[in-house]
Amino acid sequence: MKRADVTEKILTAKRLKELTWEEIAKKIGGASKIIVTAACMGQMKMTKEQATKAAKLFGLGKEETLLLQEVPYRGSLPQVPPTDPLIYRFYELVQVYGTTWKELIQEEFGDGIMSAIDFDMTMERQPDQKGDRVKIAMSGKFLSYKTY
Amino acid sequence: MKRADVTEKILTAKRLKELTWEEIAKKIGGASKIIVTAACMGQMKMTKEQATKAAKLFGLGKEETLLLQEVPYRGSLPQVPPTDPLIYRFYELVQVYGTTWKELIQEEFGDGIMSAIDFDMTMERQPDQKGDRVKIAMSGKFLSYKTY
Amino acid sequence: MKRADVTEKILTAKRLKELTWEEIAKKIGGASKIIVTAACMGQMKMTKEQATKAAKLFGLGKEETLLLQEVPYRGSLPQVPPTDPLIYRFYELVQVYGTTWKELIQEEFGDGIMSAIDFDMTMERQPDQKGDRVKIAMSGKFLSYKTY
Amino acid sequence: MKRADVTEKILTAKRLKELTWEEIAKKIGGASKIIVTAACMGQMKMTKEQATKAAKLFGLGKEETLLLQEVPYRGSLPQVPPTDPLIYRFYELVQVYGTTWKELIQEEFGDGIMSAIDFDMTMERQPDQKGDRVKIAMSGKFLSYKTY
Amino acid sequence: MKRADVTEKILTAKRLKELTWEEIAKKIGGASKIIVTAACMGQMKMTKEQATKAAKLFGLGKEETLLLQEVPYRGSLPQVPPTDPLIYRFYELVQVYGTTWKELIQEEFGDGIMSAIDFDMTMERQPDQKGDRVKIAMSGKFLSYKTY
Amino acid sequence: MKRADVTEKILTAKRLKELTWEEIAKKIGGASKIIVTAACMGQMKMTKEQATKAAKLFGLGKEETLLLQEVPYRGSLPQVPPTDPLIYRFYELVQVYGTTWKELIQEEFGDGIMSAIDFDMTMERQPDQKGDRVKIAMSGKFLSYKTY
Amino acid sequence: MKRADVTEKILTAKRLKELTWEEIAKKIGGASKIIVTAACMGQMKMTKEQATKAAKLFGLGKEETLLLQEVPYRGSLPQVPPTDPLIYRFYELVQVYGTTWKELIQEEFGDGIMSAIDFDMTMERQPDQKGDRVKIAMSGKFLSYKTY
Amino acid sequence: MKRADVTEKILTAKRLKELTWEEIAKKIGGASKIIVTAACMGQMKMTKEQATKAAKLFGLGKEETLLLQEVPYRGSLPQVPPTDPLIYRFYELVQVYGTTWKELIQEEFGDGIMSAIDFDMTMERQPDQKGDRVKIAMSGKFLSYKTY
Amino acid sequence: MKRADVTEKILTAKRLKELTWEEIAKKIGGASKIIVTAACMGQMKMTKEQATKAAKLFGLGKEETLLLQEVPYRGSLPQVPPTDPLIYRFYELVQVYGTTWKELIQEEFGDGIMSAIDFDMTMERQPDQKGDRVKIAMSGKFLSYKTY
Amino acid sequence: MKRADVTEKILTAKRLKELTWEEIAKKIGGASKIIVTAACMGQMKMTKEQATKAAKLFGLGKEETLLLQEVPYRGSLPQVPPTDPLIYRFYELVQVYGTTWKELIQEEFGDGIMSAIDFDMTMERQPDQKGDRVKIAMSGKFLSYKTY
Repeated sequence: MKRADVTEKILTAKRLKELTWEEIAKKIGGASKIIVTAACMGQMKMTKEQATKAAKLFGLGKEETLLLQEVPYRGSLPQVPPTDPLIYRFYELVQVYGTTWKELIQEEFGDGIMSAIDFDMTMERQPDQKGDRVKIAMSGKFLSYKTY
Repeated sequence: MKRADVTEKILTAKRLKELTWEEIAKKIGGASKIIVTAACMGQMKMTKEQATKAAKLFGLGKEETLLLQEVPYRGSLPQVPPTDPLIYRFYELVQVYGTTWKELIQEEFGDGIMSAIDFDMTMERQPDQKGDRVKIAMSGKFLSYKTY
Repeated sequence: MKRADVTEKILTAKRLKELTWEEIAKKIGGASKIIVTAACMGQMKMTKEQATKAAKLFGLGKEETLLLQEVPYRGSLPQVPPTDPLIYRFYELVQVYGTTWKELIQEEFGDGIMSAIDFDMTMERQPDQKGDRVKIAMSGKFLSYKTY
Repeated sequence: MKRADVTEKILTAKRLKELTWEEIAKKIGGASKIIVTAACMGQMKMTKEQATKAAKLFGLGKEETLLLQEVPYRGSLPQVPPTDPLIYRFYELVQVYGTTWKELIQEEFGDGIMSAIDFDMTMERQPDQKGDRVKIAMSGKFLSYKTY
Repeated sequence: MKRADVTEKILTAKRLKELTWEEIAKKIGGASKIIVTAACMGQMKMTKEQATKAAKLFGLGKEETLLLQEVPYRGSLPQVPPTDPLIYRFYELVQVYGTTWKELIQEEFGDGIMSAIDFDMTMERQPDQKGDRVKIAMSGKFLSYKTY
Repeated sequence: MKRADVTEKILTAKRLKELTWEEIAKKIGGASKIIVTAACMGQMKMTKEQATKAAKLFGLGKEETLLLQEVPYRGSLPQVPPTDPLIYRFYELVQVYGTTWKELIQEEFGDGIMSAIDFDMTMERQPDQKGDRVKIAMSGKFLSYKTY
Repeated sequence: MKRADVTEKILTAKRLKELTWEEIAKKIGGASKIIVTAACMGQMKMTKEQATKAAKLFGLGKEETLLLQEVPYRGSLPQVPPTDPLIYRFYELVQVYGTTWKELIQEEFGDGIMSAIDFDMTMERQPDQKGDRVKIAMSGKFLSYKTY
Repeated sequence: MKRADVTEKILTAKRLKELTWEEIAKKIGGASKIIVTAACMGQMKMTKEQATKAAKLFGLGKEETLLLQEVPYRGSLPQVPPTDPLIYRFYELVQVYGTTWKELIQEEFGDGIMSAIDFDMTMERQPDQKGDRVKIAMSGKFLSYKTY
Repeated sequence: MKRADVTEKILTAKRLKELTWEEIAKKIGGASKIIVTAACMGQMKMTKEQATKAAKLFGLGKEETLLLQEVPYRGSLPQVPPTDPLIYRFYELVQVYGTTWKELIQEEFGDGIMSAIDFDMTMERQPDQKGDRVKIAMSGKFLSYKTY
Repeated sequence: MKRADVTEKILTAKRLKELTWEEIAKKIGGASKIIVTAACMGQMKMTKEQATKAAKLFGLGKEETLLLQEVPYRGSLPQVPPTDPLIYRFYELVQVYGTTWKELIQEEFGDGIMSAIDFDMTMERQPDQKGDRVKIAMSGKFLSYKTY
C-alpha cells in the first residue's frame, strides 16, 4: 500500500460524505486547515491523534492509519510544468518573479534562503468590489549560508 | 539588441555605482520596489517616465531606453527546476502545496484561478526572536471559469 | 476512483449506445456543445443538474456522478508535443504564430494577456468549394498586467 | 547570416523609428497584418516586392532582403512550454481543449485534421462592457485521412 | 477499454492463429496491407465492414468492434527517439536528411509541406545480388502555405 | 572553424548568387542532387574534386574546403521534435507508421533492419490533377540480425 | 500479453529453480550465452526449437512460447541515462569515448558505421593479480555510407 | 579559454597539415593511439611531455599547452541520444544489451561493476571476406560492491 | 514479481509491526544499518543468511526471499531532480559543490574518481546547542584513470 | 559581465601562474579551502577583503572584484545528470542511497531535512594500504517541518 492509495481513498470518502476541507480540518484538528488538507493530499504527516480521527472520519483501516503518520515522499504534481491552470499560475509566478525575489531577499537579508521547511502560510478571501481576491501570506525563516 | 543585454548593462551599472534596489526603486519611482526590480530584471515594462529616469541612472542609450518600455518576453529562469537554492525553495512550495492550494481555493471560490496578471505582492522582513523571517503576501483576483 | 476512469466509462457508454456529442450535449444541456464535451472528456466540471442527466444517460454510479461535479485536474494530453496529428496542428499554430500573437495583442491592448479562463469558443463547419473548412472563433477577456 | 539576425534588426528599426505593426503592415502591404508581422518575426517568407519595401523601411542590406524571401525554418518559441504568460495561455488552450477539439472535429468531418497550412486567421478587439475581449477567428481547410 | 487493449488482443489472436499480416489484410480487405496493419496496430480507423471482419477473424466483442471504427489517438511509439533499431533508422533519416528535404521540396514547390494526411505509401522487397533491399515509396500531396 | 560555419557560408553564397540546388548539384557533380545538397547542409562529406568545385562556386577558403571532405557529426535538426512543419510531417510519419513498418518489414524479411547507411533515395514531383504530389522513393539494404 | 511479461515469468522460474545463465544457455542451446540471455531478457527472438526448450525449462504456455519467437520491440533500459551503476559505466564509455571512436573508425575505414546488427560479442573473465578484469570483445561489420 | 577551444584549434591544425591520428599519436607518444586521440578530443589529460609535443605539432600557445595538462570536464557528446549514426550504434548496444551485460557480469563476478576508469581498450580492423569488421576489445577491472 | 514489490511488502510489515530500521538492522545483521536499510529499500542484495532472517521478520515467501539475494537494478528515485525536499538537498549539494569537489579531489589525487562502489558511509546525530546536526561521513577508494 | 566570465578569468590566471587551490585558499583566506574554491568556481560570494585579495592574486578589474562579492546564481553543472565521471559518482550516490538517507534521517530526527545552507563539509585523503581513500564529512543542521 502506498500513500497515494490513502489519498485516493480519502478523496472518495470526502466526495461520498460531501465533506468540505473546512469541516475535515475541524474534525481532525491539531493544525491549520492548510496543513490538514496537505496531509490528506499526501504531503504532510499526521500525528497519531489526527490519524485516528481521520481514520474514523474516512473509514480507514489499520495500515492506512499508520501510513498517515509516516513522513510522505513529497511532491504532489503529476508532471512539471503543471498542466492545471490554477496550479500553473503559481509556477508562472516563480518563472516571472524568481530572480526578483532573489535580488530583494538577498539585499535585505544577505546570502541565504527563505526556508520552505520552517515555514507557514495562510490563505483567505479578500473581498473586493472589482472581484474578490485570493490572499496568500507566507512566512519562512531566513537561513544564512554558512561559511567556515 | 535584446532585453537580456539591457538587464546585464543595468546590473553592471548597479554594481559599479554600488546602488541598492531600494535606492533604484526610489529614483525610478512610479511603482513598488518589486515592480521596479522586476522591470530592471527584464520581466516588466517601464513607463516612458520610468525608462527615462532609468536611462539617466544607469547610463543607457536610446534603443535601451525604448526597449525598457516594451513588454518583455517573460521568463526569468535559465532552467527549470531552478538550480539556485533561494529560487528552488519557491518551486518546492509549488511542488508540495500545489494540489492543496487547488483544493482550498476551489472550495472557497468555485472553479477558477488566482490571477497572476491582476496580481500584487509585498515582501518584508518579519523580526522574530528565533531568527527573522521573510514575509511575502500575494493577492490575485479570482477569475471564474466561464461556461457558455 | 479518478476522473479519468469516469471519462473512460463515458466513452464506453457513448460507443455502445452510438451517441454523438451533438446528442449528448442536447441531453445534458446547460452549456454549449464544446463545454459539455470538455466536461465528458474530464476537463470541465458539471453542475449538479448536468451530472444527474449525464449519470442517467451513461449509467453512472453515485461517486462517478459526484466526481463530474468536481473541478478536474486539467490537462488532456498524454504527452507534449501531442503525437496525434489533429491536435498537433493546434500546437504547431502556437509554435509558429506565438510571438506574432504576442506582438499584435500587445500593440492593440498594452501589457497583458488574453484570458483562457474568461474565455469562450465556437467551432463550426464552413462550406467551401475547394473543400470545407473548420472555423474556430475564440474570445477571451483581455487582462492588463497590474503594476502597483 | 541567419533569419533570426534579420528579425533582431527589424525589431531594432521598428523600435527606433517608433513604428507600429499596423503601420508596418500598411507600408509593406501584399498581405494581412498577421502575415506581415509573422514574416517580420521570421515565420513567413515575403514576396520580392514586400521584401524590397521592408528593406527600405528597416534599412536592410542585400542579403537580409534576400533572406526575407526564403522560407524560414519555422518555430518562434525559445522553449516549450512557453514561459511568457501571453503565449502560454494559447498553449494552455491546447492542453485543456485538445481532446475536445479532436472529438468534435472528427464527429463533424470524419477522420482527418484542420490544416495549419491552408489556414487563415483574424484577430480583433471586441468591445465589451465588462472589459474588452481579444477575438481570434481561425479557419483551416479540413483534410481527410486518405486510405488506399 | 482503450484502443491499446484492442491492439494487444489482436496481436494475441494473430499469434495463436499464426496469421500473417498478408493474410489478415486479405481477410479484412477494403484497403492496402499497410493501412490494414496500421489499423490493427491502433493507428487507423476501420470501416464498419472491415471491423466486422476483423471481429470475426480475431474473436472481438462488441465494444472492441466499435472501437476499431473510431479514429484513434495516433502515435505508436512508446518513447522518442525510438529505442527499437528498425524504427530508429527511420528517425535517423529524419535527423540526417530533414533539412535537405526541406531545401529540395521548397525549391521545387515553393513554401509549403508534403501532406502526411493526403498521403500514401507502398513497401516492397527489391531483389538485389548484394542483398535484398527494402523499398518504400511515399507520395503526399503538396500543400502551399496560404497567405491572405 | 566548424562544419556549421561552412554551411552558413554556403547558404550566404547561394543566396547572393541566386543559385538553385539544381544548379549547385550540376556544378559540383559526382553525386545525385540529394547527396550534394545534404553535403552542403553539413550532413555528407564531399570528395576532393567536389569540394574543389564547391570552393570555387561558393568562394571558400582552404580550411573550409578541407572541412567539406571530412565526415561531419551528423544530425541536422536544431531540436526534436522538429518545429518546422515541413520536417515535422516526416517525423509524424515515423510516429504514426513506425510500428507498422516494423511489423511488415519483419514479416517479409525476418529479424533485422532497413539500413540507413547502405541507402539511397529519390525525390520528384508527381503531377496530379487534384494537386501535385511529392514522391519520395527510398531503398535500403536489409540487414539481418546476426546470432552466433 | 507482452514480451515483458514473459521476461518476468522467465526470471521467476530462473530464481525458483536456481538456474544460472550458463545452465540456461546450455539447455536452450542454438546460440551463444549472450544471445540466449538477451533473448530471455526480451531483446532477441528465439528459433522455434529454442523456444520449445525454453518453454519446457521455464514452464511457459503456448502464447508465451510463440511470443519468444517474435522479434521484440528492443530497448532494455527503464530510463536513460541508466540509473544502475553497472550499466551506467557502459553509457559513460559512450559519453567519454564517443567522438574518439568516430575519429579512429573513420580514419581507418572511411565514412560509415560499425554495424550493431551484423555484430557479435564475447565476454570473459580475465584473471589479473591486481583484481580480475571483465573483458568484452565486440566485432561489427563496417558499413560504408553509400553515395549515388 | 576552455578546453573545447583547444580541441577546435587542434582539429584545425590537423586539417591544414593533413595529419592522421596515427601520425599524431606517434609524434606525441607516451600512450596508445586511443588515449592520445581522446586527449586531443578533450577527454583525457596529457603529461607535460605530451603537451609540449602537441604544442609544437599544432602550434599551441602557453595557456593551451597548460590546459591540455588539466583533467577535462568529461563528456564528448553535444546531446544524448547522439544524433551521429556512428556513435548512436554504440548507444544502441547499451540500450539493447545493457541488462544482458548486467546479468552475465554479475553471474560471473558477483555484485559490482566493470570499471570505466581502470579500463583499457583496443580497436582494430578485422579483415573479412564478407566485408571488413571493426573489432573493439575492452577490459575493465571488476570492482565489488563493498558492504560494511 | 519485481524487487519493488518486495520493498513494498517489507514496508507494510515494518509499518504494521511498528519496527524501526534500528531494530530491523539488528535482527537481520551481517552489515551496518545503512546497508541493511538500503537492501530493504531495494538497492543492495542480501546474503542468504540475511534474507532468511528478513523473510522471517517480514513474513516473506520463497520467491521474495530469493529476490532479496539478487543484485537489484539500482536507482531509488521516482524522478530526478527528486521532488522530496530531504533528498533534494543532497542533489543540491551536487549541483552547487560538484565542480568544487572535482577541483579539490583532482588536486589532491590526480586524474580519477572517488569510487561509489568501494565505498562506505556512516550517518549520526551530532548534538549541537543551536540545533542538532546530521553528520554524514563518506569514504570511497580513489581510482586513477588508467592510460596505456 | 557575468559571474561565469570571472570564473573563467580566475581559472586562466590559476593556470598561467601554476597556482594550486591550496595556495589560493591560503592567500585569499577568511574561510576553508572548500569555500574559497567554491567562491572561485562561482558558487559562493566573497567578503570585500577576500575579493580584494583575489583581485590582486588573479589580476581582476573593478567590476570583477565587485561581482565576487555578490551572491551568485548557484548551480555549477553544465547539464544533469553530470557527464563527468568524478561528479557523476556523487549523483549516483543520491540515486542509490536517496531513499535510505530519507528513512534513516527521519527515523532519528523526525520529519524535516538536513540543511544544505547551514552546512559544512571537510574533505581529506585517508591513507589506506589497498589504495588511498577520499574522505568527505558533511554536517548540516536538522530542520524540522513546522506545522501550525
